[in-house]
Amino acid sequence: MTLLAELLSTVFERRQRLGRLDHGDDRRPIEALTADLIGASGEASGLGLARRLLERYSGMDDAQKIAFFRHLAHDMNIVAAKVRAALDAYEAAQTKSTYRAYMQASEPPRQELIRRLNQVPGATAALVRMRADLLALGKGDDALRALDLDFRHLFASWFNRGFLVLRPISWESPARILEKIIAYEAVHRIDSWDDLRRRVEPHDRRCFAFFHPAMPDEPLIFVEVALTHGISRSVQSLLTETRDVLEEEGADTAVFYSISNCQAGLAGISFGNSLIKQVAADLSMEFPGLKTFATLSPIPGLVDWLAAEGILVTPDESEKLRELAARYLLTAKRTDGLPLDPVARFHLGNGARVHDVQAGADLSDKGLAQSHGVMVNYLYDLNSVSQNHEGFAAKRKIAVSPQMRSLAAAAEKTLA
Amino acid sequence: MTLLAELLSTVFERRQRLGRLDHGDDRRPIEALTADLIGASGEASGLGLARRLLERYSGMDDAQKIAFFRHLAHDMNIVAAKVRAALDAYEAAQTKSTYRAYMQASEPPRQELIRRLNQVPGATAALVRMRADLLALGKGDDALRALDLDFRHLFASWFNRGFLVLRPISWESPARILEKIIAYEAVHRIDSWDDLRRRVEPHDRRCFAFFHPAMPDEPLIFVEVALTHGISRSVQSLLTETRDVLEEEGADTAVFYSISNCQAGLAGISFGNSLIKQVAADLSMEFPGLKTFATLSPIPGLVDWLAAEGILVTPDESEKLRELAARYLLTAKRTDGLPLDPVARFHLGNGARVHDVQAGADLSDKGLAQSHGVMVNYLYDLNSVSQNHEGFAAKRKIAVSPQMRSLAAAAEKTLA
Amino acid sequence: MTLLAELLSTVFERRQRLGRLDHGDDRRPIEALTADLIGASGEASGLGLARRLLERYSGMDDAQKIAFFRHLAHDMNIVAAKVRAALDAYEAAQTKSTYRAYMQASEPPRQELIRRLNQVPGATAALVRMRADLLALGKGDDALRALDLDFRHLFASWFNRGFLVLRPISWESPARILEKIIAYEAVHRIDSWDDLRRRVEPHDRRCFAFFHPAMPDEPLIFVEVALTHGISRSVQSLLTETRDVLEEEGADTAVFYSISNCQAGLAGISFGNSLIKQVAADLSMEFPGLKTFATLSPIPGLVDWLAAEGILVTPDESEKLRELAARYLLTAKRTDGLPLDPVARFHLGNGARVHDVQAGADLSDKGLAQSHGVMVNYLYDLNSVSQNHEGFAAKRKIAVSPQMRSLAAAAEKTLA
Amino acid sequence: MTLLAELLSTVFERRQRLGRLDHGDDRRPIEALTADLIGASGEASGLGLARRLLERYSGMDDAQKIAFFRHLAHDMNIVAAKVRAALDAYEAAQTKSTYRAYMQASEPPRQELIRRLNQVPGATAALVRMRADLLALGKGDDALRALDLDFRHLFASWFNRGFLVLRPISWESPARILEKIIAYEAVHRIDSWDDLRRRVEPHDRRCFAFFHPAMPDEPLIFVEVALTHGISRSVQSLLTETRDVLEEEGADTAVFYSISNCQAGLAGISFGNSLIKQVAADLSMEFPGLKTFATLSPIPGLVDWLAAEGILVTPDESEKLRELAARYLLTAKRTDGLPLDPVARFHLGNGARVHDVQAGADLSDKGLAQSHGVMVNYLYDLNSVSQNHEGFAAKRKIAVSPQMRSLAAAAEKTLA
Repeated sequence: MTLLAELLSTVFERRQRLGRLDHGDDRRPIEALTADLIGASGEASGLGLARRLLERYSGMDDAQKIAFFRHLAHDMNIVAAKVRAALDAYEAAQTKSTYRAYMQASEPPRQELIRRLNQVPGATAALVRMRADLLALGKGDDALRALDLDFRHLFASWFNRGFLVLRPISWESPARILEKIIAYEAVHRIDSWDDLRRRVEPHDRRCFAFFHPAMPDEPLIFVEVALTHGISRSVQSLLTETRDVLEEEGADTAVFYSISNCQAGLAGISFGNSLIKQVAADLSMEFPGLKTFATLSPIPGLVDWLAAEGILVTPDESEKLRELAARYLLTAKRTDGLPLDPVARFHLGNGARVHDVQAGADLSDKGLAQSHGVMVNYLYDLNSVSQNHEGFAAKRKIAVSPQMRSLAAAAEKTLA
Repeated sequence: MTLLAELLSTVFERRQRLGRLDHGDDRRPIEALTADLIGASGEASGLGLARRLLERYSGMDDAQKIAFFRHLAHDMNIVAAKVRAALDAYEAAQTKSTYRAYMQASEPPRQELIRRLNQVPGATAALVRMRADLLALGKGDDALRALDLDFRHLFASWFNRGFLVLRPISWESPARILEKIIAYEAVHRIDSWDDLRRRVEPHDRRCFAFFHPAMPDEPLIFVEVALTHGISRSVQSLLTETRDVLEEEGADTAVFYSISNCQAGLAGISFGNSLIKQVAADLSMEFPGLKTFATLSPIPGLVDWLAAEGILVTPDESEKLRELAARYLLTAKRTDGLPLDPVARFHLGNGARVHDVQAGADLSDKGLAQSHGVMVNYLYDLNSVSQNHEGFAAKRKIAVSPQMRSLAAAAEKTLA
Repeated sequence: MTLLAELLSTVFERRQRLGRLDHGDDRRPIEALTADLIGASGEASGLGLARRLLERYSGMDDAQKIAFFRHLAHDMNIVAAKVRAALDAYEAAQTKSTYRAYMQASEPPRQELIRRLNQVPGATAALVRMRADLLALGKGDDALRALDLDFRHLFASWFNRGFLVLRPISWESPARILEKIIAYEAVHRIDSWDDLRRRVEPHDRRCFAFFHPAMPDEPLIFVEVALTHGISRSVQSLLTETRDVLEEEGADTAVFYSISNCQAGLAGISFGNSLIKQVAADLSMEFPGLKTFATLSPIPGLVDWLAAEGILVTPDESEKLRELAARYLLTAKRTDGLPLDPVARFHLGNGARVHDVQAGADLSDKGLAQSHGVMVNYLYDLNSVSQNHEGFAAKRKIAVSPQMRSLAAAAEKTLA
Repeated sequence: MTLLAELLSTVFERRQRLGRLDHGDDRRPIEALTADLIGASGEASGLGLARRLLERYSGMDDAQKIAFFRHLAHDMNIVAAKVRAALDAYEAAQTKSTYRAYMQASEPPRQELIRRLNQVPGATAALVRMRADLLALGKGDDALRALDLDFRHLFASWFNRGFLVLRPISWESPARILEKIIAYEAVHRIDSWDDLRRRVEPHDRRCFAFFHPAMPDEPLIFVEVALTHGISRSVQSLLTETRDVLEEEGADTAVFYSISNCQAGLAGISFGNSLIKQVAADLSMEFPGLKTFATLSPIPGLVDWLAAEGILVTPDESEKLRELAARYLLTAKRTDGLPLDPVARFHLGNGARVHDVQAGADLSDKGLAQSHGVMVNYLYDLNSVSQNHEGFAAKRKIAVSPQMRSLAAAAEKTLA
């Protein structure tokens, strides 16, 4: 076995072993275990305790989980008086030891607890699932929502972009990974292994995912790409069974037609921007002929907005739909000034610009229901992505192509 | 290429690219860059800034580095008033948003800065080197020593045991890794590639290292092991060129004869205990015949202690030396009650027990100079390791074999 | 990328490139190409010629293929007069050069042609497909059947057991390999990816295949194994969706329940014996608790034999069926004295013994049609396999368990 | 572990096991073992016999080896009468079975014996070593030299270019491979691991080797390449410790400065041409800026030829040496019309042309002794390589640059 493969297989094997071990019959209350773990003087005893805690957790029902989270939220919170005392002492004399004392007091012990749980091989995935539980069970509970910030704080550090690895997903990938791509696809459902194969096997269809080395068979986020000649106008043409595979030389455009987050427990930790840029960079190195990087994206809020605005339009009024979609994307805003459409917020925030809208582009039930089948192309122009991003971040400025501006203007006339 | 190999090769390639890119001519003061990076609204612009900062740092001389560290220490520290205000607000109303505000105020912005620097592929190793600089340059400076606690806090989280991977080091390992083993060996110097080969190629000689996936060709710590029949009594016999390789069936003992930390920038982040236990577990799975796990360890403080105590003894008084070494290990203490000998503190803290001492066991210049050639075997008895650890951690109790107790007692008589 | 992975990825990439290259417009008759290739003085020009020939072949229809095979069979055959002359010369003076001349004359030039075709990366798989064509198209044609012996001679050398590698097939395997397992399964059809998963994912279900390094994604033969407690009595119980996975410690038996050859073009090159023994050896190393290695095999000829013998029996007469199956396996012979049943010939030839028969063991349409649902367990007893093999090979002696002998005897009584 | 890595690790592990097994005490004469192996009816018993034979062989002294080879040469040779009878029968009726009988009779049984020996995992390398013995011990013995043709015939089939894999050798390669590069380098000796590192680590120094999957840690042949600006004029400048590494963009030339065959037992099986062309193709894909592929080659026969011709020249007469070297390369011929210089024969046979000669280009003892320090650049111009090859193969025509022609002409004048 090679060293590099060993490196990861080791992770894998250890993970396998987790849970098979017999840890005796430590039936003390969970509070005793957390207290012990947080107090454990060395890595030595900590590891066994952490394993036991994770196993206990994995056997809990929802009520027990809530109780466990409340225990973390209340009993392992900061103690304001202690923070104040440590802060005073540090202000009085700024030394290494007063700073250490302050650091310890100002951080809730549950953060250290979570870090110690993470010592167990395979624990990272378990903790991500734990946070998914917390998000689901903690709704509306202030203390649990605050607790979630601690998880998120740690995860942002652990799932730092520098730790992630980009892997192509192809028909050479392990079935164990591929079945997760099927399960996690959130934009255009994958119906079968044959459907999957059409998206990952041909030379002009690519898929890439971010992974974390501590969760080597759990994709975090993935993107599906079509290499095309010109920007695609419909998702049907991309996914049809009967199409000609494009010769590599013919491709001048990479169309990102689906991006899916995979881990509910990593909500709020953003990978999408990095993923798109990394994939664009890798593809343009592999295919120097690629000139255009664009998306073919859903407009999930269009139909709702039309209804809210009282605008009537039928799915076959293509041109009117395009105008209205342009207007929606360019003018419909939340109270904070950001676009109403969540997908628009994502791509504009990444520095893309609204390039074009396509009618009849997604004729699936979902596509028709949410946007009367209209889709939008966001364009990632590497020369202006940074400037677009700044403009959007600082001034809510939406980068737009001239044709989109015209369409939106036309809508205004029509509606007037 | 396989998916797993790709995963790591991706890391590798990206790292290669770091530094080759042309980042224009951003000659603004470093303070402007840190301010920008900490204020950067998205991953997008942050990445370029982080890269530029790391490159600037890598070109600094010591004075500039100290200035940079001072900038972090003073300008990016907590602001006591803000911490107090946020704490008050949180105490008044414990909601998600008051807690978020508290979290933000209570953590110095330099921690977030370091996390953002770490987004750059390959940055982790650069940050580890940065901390090595800080430790060297910051001695005696309270603010810099406090700053080091932030690095250490983040590194403890990133180099969490659950993220580390154990890799065997062998004659099949890449030369790039092996040359680092030669360079980092800190106990028994490796003189040449032939010397290295004698330690990693034969069936009865093993070497294992912990790696972090973000630094795939930098070992963090490694241990060298000899599979033997009975516990080894001298390091010369282990390392000699002319010895018979033991048949696998004949081995009943694994002797850990050298443990070396590799990264100055990871000082204080402890891996050794985990490494020994993991290796012991893996070896005993591979060789069910292994019954004993012990070390052959140096006694770095013996000669100094003898001098301090005014005890005269010559290197050829074997038995007397053994008695004195036993006495030293069992009774010489620091003011905090822990053993004076650093290697003893390490192994006893791991739950090992002092098993035996060997005279004439290390006849190298270094061995003669520090301990008149005496070495010690610490025994890792998996049945008592946990109990030993607790006893040592809680009550400074040193686990000892009866024969060592007798030797120490004999020393007392001799000295009396 | 690691060296070992590179090794194979190189194979893979080169194979990918095959066929994409533009080889000009060499429209000479195929006979001119073969003449050139066989005459080519160096590797240099040979490679291009070989590639062109393979491409031309891949575009041929059946009639053209037959013409090509006839060309090889007739124009590239030995020339008896030349063989005789070379033989005479060698007999007269046994030197290196007369022997070389004899070797050249005695081997038909088409063998060298096939070897030269094989220089092209990826050619081995193409040549295996070519032989599959030859076997299909050459039936009843003496010259083409003789030509096949040349292919077979070369393939026996190239697919020598020492060159094959055993790979576990699991849910971690690439989809590209797994879909071939689905396609090639010849005993118990795999209905879907879910069905496949049940056979390769659980800890107590294993699958292994032989591969050749020059055809890294084409399995040559594979075997499916169930780890069980006791010898399985029915294939339904092995393949059911609703069963409990066996804990590893509980398994004492490995049941080989399906063996499939994958490559029509490798007919007559036997791998099965090696595969079973290698897998048995590997499994017994991994699971020291395994005591019994047995098959659960079809009896494809039973129903036909019963018909030929005029014996009437219904599928629900379990005991009578078992007796008759025993009698069939032990006494029904071909004119050459070997068992009538092809599966029996295979396992007995490998040194297995007939251990037991199970009624109602394969209730699929195919199982009912060929054997009224009866199956047989052949036992691979590592202590007697060699002796059984010798007895069978030398004297057609069938190794049998006492209970099978009794069953066969009972059948005799019943029929009498 | 990944499938691909497994594939090779399996090879590796099996090889490891070879020789450890206890094969009882089969002390029959070697002739009994070969007779048994050749007669073995199945793979089953054959494997054990083959292993025993290889082990017996590995313990033989030279006299015993010669006796073993004589046994193969004489007792396992063709039997002329049988060949004739089978040939007559085939001529009379050309059927599959007469052809099979002819094939069997016309091939000496020792070929089948060698194929059966090769069934043992790891046997290929053992057989390559066996042929190296045969070449060394069989000199001047007609029967043994004829026997060698059988080995060579089989090896040419097994080591067919289509089965070889090209691997880059770098500082990432396993030490086990790298130490063989050191040992096998035959042109410019590698003095130490540091010397090796200078040849494989910098970006502008490359090394590539052919491997066979059945001998995964034995390079068959390797080439060392320097990426340079312009064609190198001396090997000292390539190998010096103090040089600047070339930026990738600056390289326009790949200089092949050393090619070494590694396996004495593969003498006469030519890989060099394929290696150079494959490496040239791979490099030009990786570095589109590469325009020139040339060698910096020794002229091993120059000094001897000068002596034979009675030409006096001193090492410091640079220009005269260049002229004489040109003349030697272009005009000195063997009786068969091929160039006297073996390196010239190799490169010209590959289709290279004599491009330039460099005085003072190899100042090592060996370089001075064999060619007064002169070296030659052969140029691989991909446009003319095929035409050059044909001209050389068919008409002994040497492709030459105009400047070399002038130099040779100048030499003529000087000598006149």
